[in-house]
Amino acid sequence: MGRWGPDARGPLEQAALELCLQRGFEQVTVSEIAQRAGFSERTFYRHFADKPEVLFMGMGYLQANVVGLVANAPTAAVPMEAVIAAFEQAGAVFQENAEVLRRRQGVVDTHPELRARELSKVAALAEAIAEALRRRGAADPEAVLVAEAGTLAFRLAYAGWIRHTGQHDWPRLFRRTLEEIGGVIAGAVTHMAPGET
Amino acid sequence: MGRWGPDARGPLEQAALELCLQRGFEQVTVSEIAQRAGFSERTFYRHFADKPEVLFMGMGYLQANVVGLVANAPTAAVPMEAVIAAFEQAGAVFQENAEVLRRRQGVVDTHPELRARELSKVAALAEAIAEALRRRGAADPEAVLVAEAGTLAFRLAYAGWIRHTGQHDWPRLFRRTLEEIGGVIAGAVTHMAPGET
Repeated sequence: MGRWGPDARGPLEQAALELCLQRGFEQVTVSEIAQRAGFSERTFYRHFADKPEVLFMGMGYLQANVVGLVANAPTAAVPMEAVIAAFEQAGAVFQENAEVLRRRQGVVDTHPELRARELSKVAALAEAIAEALRRRGAADPEAVLVAEAGTLAFRLAYAGWIRHTGQHDWPRLFRRTLEEIGGVIAGAVTHMAPGET
Repeated sequence: MGRWGPDARGPLEQAALELCLQRGFEQVTVSEIAQRAGFSERTFYRHFADKPEVLFMGMGYLQANVVGLVANAPTAAVPMEAVIAAFEQAGAVFQENAEVLRRRQGVVDTHPELRARELSKVAALAEAIAEALRRRGAADPEAVLVAEAGTLAFRLAYAGWIRHTGQHDWPRLFRRTLEEIGGVIAGAVTHMAPGET
């Protein structure tokens, strides 16, 4: 219960997803979403800046969660270890919301405006992680490199996870994806002398 | 000379950049850009789908260039080597356009709509590289991992290059950035046993 009464976000998100799946994102209005969830349009805009935002509520939670876990990682953890552990732990909620996340992704993937919003959210996630690492004492460029590498692994692992919801153990998939990114880089840069093209 | 006569794209891009730097992206109209370059609004829309696109002409050239270089890389080159060589070579044009690129980035970075467009262009670049790798016979997930790792290194190296235009040798900066990404991953994943968090 917030100061505005019962939290409208969950019901608004659910209503938006149902309406988008039925009729397509463009055809659905904020007024309809609000009405279906039993709230006013004004309440919708109190929680979400615009219509696309209601489909990215989970990204907000994920970012807050990952940033919090990075901030509270053991002091001894190097930045990349802190980010790996944070993404592994933050993904625990994926499995219990698998069906909703899969349906949501179907809506996002079929609308360029939503795909663009997703890219902005992922970029913001990487920036927030870099900032969390700096607050732990990491310097640039390491903070940025670690945040971006971790976020790339998250994005690719999540895309694989959502295609096969329930068939992958998230922490294992995330770690394997990061290792594979490291592997393709290491395989090439050890082959080639600096400056060789 | 295209079928429409002298290429309007260069002059339109230059006019757009000058007007945006003078008055800000939002304040400038397509009509003004066309007029300043000596072309009609219709000609503008023949070359660019909308106003933001005129500021991303270079990304189109870069993508075509990188994709072509990947396609024509030696058969013996593994995917990551082909992508490294492509980005190193494709960056040769950066130095000779350094001042324009620096001014352009100043416009892009200060407008959320343009930043979002840039993220979409970078995502499209990674997808095009993955597709070029598949046409060379690479399988997924390697094609995607290599394309995304290379594109991440490009994005971070380019951001550094543009902040210090002219002070960095592009191929060296690109390679070092990729090595640094590989380094932060390798440093953490060898520390930790699988499943350890």
